[in-house]
Order: sequence, then structure tokens, then C-alpha cells
Amino acid sequence: MKLLTYSHRGVRKVGAYVEGAVVDLAEAYKAVYGAEKAPDFLYDMKDLISAGEPALRIAREVAEKASGEHYLDPRSIVWEPPVVSPEKILAVAVNYKSHGREMGHAPPPRPYFFPKFPNALVGHERPIIKHRIVQKMDWEVELVVIIGRSGKYIPKESALDYVFGYTVGNDISMRDWQYPPTELGLGWIWGKSMDTAAPVGPYIVTADEIGDPNKLGLRLYVNGVLEQEGNTADLIFNIQDLIHWASQGITLKPGDMIFTGTPPGVGHAKGKYLKDGDVVEAEVEGIGVLRNYVIEEK
Amino acid sequence: MKLLTYSHRGVRKVGAYVEGAVVDLAEAYKAVYGAEKAPDFLYDMKDLISAGEPALRIAREVAEKASGEHYLDPRSIVWEPPVVSPEKILAVAVNYKSHGREMGHAPPPRPYFFPKFPNALVGHERPIIKHRIVQKMDWEVELVVIIGRSGKYIPKESALDYVFGYTVGNDISMRDWQYPPTELGLGWIWGKSMDTAAPVGPYIVTADEIGDPNKLGLRLYVNGVLEQEGNTADLIFNIQDLIHWASQGITLKPGDMIFTGTPPGVGHAKGKYLKDGDVVEAEVEGIGVLRNYVIEEK
Repeated sequence: MKLLTYSHRGVRKVGAYVEGAVVDLAEAYKAVYGAEKAPDFLYDMKDLISAGEPALRIAREVAEKASGEHYLDPRSIVWEPPVVSPEKILAVAVNYKSHGREMGHAPPPRPYFFPKFPNALVGHERPIIKHRIVQKMDWEVELVVIIGRSGKYIPKESALDYVFGYTVGNDISMRDWQYPPTELGLGWIWGKSMDTAAPVGPYIVTADEIGDPNKLGLRLYVNGVLEQEGNTADLIFNIQDLIHWASQGITLKPGDMIFTGTPPGVGHAKGKYLKDGDVVEAEVEGIGVLRNYVIEEK
Repeated sequence: MKLLTYSHRGVRKVGAYVEGAVVDLAEAYKAVYGAEKAPDFLYDMKDLISAGEPALRIAREVAEKASGEHYLDPRSIVWEPPVVSPEKILAVAVNYKSHGREMGHAPPPRPYFFPKFPNALVGHERPIIKHRIVQKMDWEVELVVIIGRSGKYIPKESALDYVFGYTVGNDISMRDWQYPPTELGLGWIWGKSMDTAAPVGPYIVTADEIGDPNKLGLRLYVNGVLEQEGNTADLIFNIQDLIHWASQGITLKPGDMIFTGTPPGVGHAKGKYLKDGDVVEAEVEGIGVLRNYVIEEK
């Protein structure tokens, strides 16, 4: 199932993406069941994820039973980040050897996580702001894990049981703020978490539709030109490893996001950076295409 | 004014701390004005901060007019983090030269921020968990800034206008996960953001009661023994500088927290670490004492 958060006429909604159309789950629920009120979990994605299997079962049933009159044209909506305010967004550095090589970094002995904050989240078809203090803004297509239930010290063997679904992320990077390194580390906060530096979407594909997340192709295009290409089969730390490590002493919660690393082909390695008007398309096999537009801040 | 978040009989509340007692602001509002309903901003600290000056004015008026019957004994409440789910918690490394020296780090050319996530927040009188995977858990008393309104590129000259208030923080650090450094940086996520690694409180003191935040004494005691002592007058980057830098390309929002750095005297420099049963008291002049108890995870 494909689930999204969107705004329509200024109101934030949870929807299902069905055959190219968007179903307003709360409104469809009321119509399908003749109910006066829809459950709270059909109004907020984090609530839907947190409410577990019965909630998802209802969302599925509603999406299946909704008739055409509940279908919205995606062009009439504003795509929001699928989860608007996750407690944590953890991203992993250098998780493809060939990307490590192009950036001059050796593979780390255990995953090296850096943060993004929710101010950075932005949905499909929305602008990425190139802030006026940034010279070198870069792209990074990534598979993003959406955590489904709380866990700490999650074993690798059962790690995928904690996944609600997957979406596409673009780990937008301000290379002139990320580098040069200091003795305390790279400039992770400004380098990775300026406003709009975390496009995600268009929607979450639930885990059952993906199966094995460790064999998905990734591609990124700038203005239609292929810049990145890779496959999660080449991850240094695979999805189970990342969930295991991220949960060491840290309780993962429903809606948390893990950006799983980027394959080779980033702009920094080629001396190319994003500029006003660029169209960036990040694609993950089995999920879809996340498209964003670069706007320079005046 | 002193404002806190607390739980009483399992319900989360916003309170004022008045003469050693806690006033339930929503209940006192209804009693004082004979109203059927209290405004939403008296139920959630982030809403109170976000609602601006008129909301704070009402909170003040309620606290002043509340009579003794609305006073709760603090021993009957559970102290929660003053803001339970800030969008961002930014902490700054090496912001006192003498602490930099004891850790072997030079002062950075601009503030070096690292993240904490809300999973790490814990209130006054609550346990700090020494996770079973941690050997070297350390203390760091800090002045914590609570942001009052949204801003980006905040000028130093007006930075204090963006402050709602201040609280005390203890930047609990897992030294065996923070060090040794890798080429990507210190281990900031596990080192600083395991569950309960960010005690804050007991309450927020509003900015008007503090005046100049750059001349406040700090002390930290473990089991009654003085371990840290300093003064924000010695900050490398003062409060205005930190707000200015933190907001470069990053919109600060109401309720966001900035941990402003720790003075010398951390355990790591002395080969001392926190253990089961330790009582840690972090004190900032003009605010109060944040007390927490160490519990080893089995």
C-alpha cells in the first residue's frame, strides 16, 4: 500500500495513492461505512503508524472500497513529507564503498550516523531552497526506512519487523558547510539540515510490498541527466544492520526515519552543484520518483 | 516566571512554579475566571511558547491570581522535560576554553553543533539510565536556551529577542561511544543522544527574569561533591553568537533548545564516571537545581 501526507485547500490529510489518484482516507472512511466520524489515525501518519496493524488494516480496506468520487487528482494537492514531525531522522555517512572512494573516506568500522531535523523535511514536487549562504549544494538519492514500532537493541534477525515502510529521500548536502572537517567532525548540522535539505516522498510504500530492501536500484537525475546509479545490494551496512546499530541505547519510535546512504555519482566528486531552476529526480526501484525544484534564496 | 511541564495522576500538564508550589495553569484558569474551558496553550508548553506574548500574559495573570487551593506539592508530581518534543535540540561542543583544554580540543573557529533528539529528554528528579552497553558515562552542566519565536539568520544584536527563557541541562555523555574520533567526526549520536542523555529542568525561567544570560554561574555536584564550576561569562561563543550561528539556513522554532556548552570539571578528564545510585545535581545561577539519579540498566 502507498500512503502519503498531503495538503488540500490548506488542510493536512493522510491519503492512499491508488492507481495514480489520491484517496482522502478520513473522508472515504465516512462515506464507505456511513460513519459520522473517522478514527484519529486517518488524520495523521504518525498516529496511523503508531496504531499498528488494525489501523493499517482499516486504511487498506478504506482504500480498496473507496469509489472514484473519492479520488483526487494529484495535481490538486500539495505533497507533504509522509511523516511531518518524526522524533528522529538518522542518516548514515559513507554506506557505499564507491561513494566513500569518490569522497575520499574509508568505510567506517560501524555505521556513522548524522542527524537531520524536521525543519529539513519537504515533500514531493516542493522546492529545495539553495540558501544565500550556500555555494555548493549537492544531491544524494537514498532509500529511507520508516520505523513502524518502538524498539531498542533491535536484533538484526528481527530488524525488518520494525519497519513500517520505505520512501525515497534526497540527502541534500551543503558541501561548503560540511567541509573541511574539523577535529570535532565534519559540519553535519549546517551541511545536512538546513531548511528543505531533506526531500522525502512521494509516499511510503508499506514493507509488505517491498520484501527485501537490500536489492533495490537507485537513480538520480538532474534536469533529466542521470547522475547517480546504484543498488542497495551494495550497502556496506544493510537495512537490518542500520536498524540494529541505530537502536543501540536509542529507542526508535514509529515514524522515525533512517536515511540509508547514497551510491556514487554525487556532484561534489564531479565539481557540479545544484543551481536555481534545476529539477532533481530521485528514484528508488519499487517505490517511485521524488521530484523537487531548486530555488535560490534571494 | 517559572513554567514547567509535569504529570499528575498520569495526565500531562503545564504549570507555574510559585513559592515552592506547582500551579496547574489550566485548572486555575477555570477557577479564577469561572470559565468552562481553558485555552489550549495552558495544556502544552510548546503551544504556550508559540502563542506569544498574550498567552504568556494570561499564564502570568493566572499564576498570580491562583489561590492556595490550586497549589500542588511538588512531591506529588512527576517532573517532565519543560518542552517534551522540541523540533530541534542543538548542543555546542567545546564552548569554554578550559573545558576544551581538559578534553584536548582547540576552540573551533565557529560553534560546532551536535544533535540531541527528544528520546534523550528527561525531567527533574527522573532517572538517567546508564545503558548496559556504556562504560564511561559523564556529566556536563549547561545553560539551556529555549527559543521563543521562529527565526532564520537571526542577527546577534536582536538574538535575545528570540529567547523565551532558560533552563538547566545536563549533557550526559557516553565517552566510550563519543571517542575515539573517526575521520567523519566524534561519535555524536550514541555519545550524546542515548535515551535519558538530556536531563533538563526543573522549569523554564522566562527571559525577563534572567536579563543577561552571559554572566550566570554554573555548578555540578555528584553525590554532593562539587565537580564542575564555571560562569557563562567565559563562553567562547556567547548566547547571542550561538543563536545567530544556529539559525544560519536553519529556522529556529518555538520550543527549540540550545545546549550552550559546559565548563571544566567533567569526569572524563579525571577518570571518573557515573555509576548506579549516583545523584547528580546541575545548577545554574538564577534558575535552580536539576537533580537526577543514575540507574544502571540490567
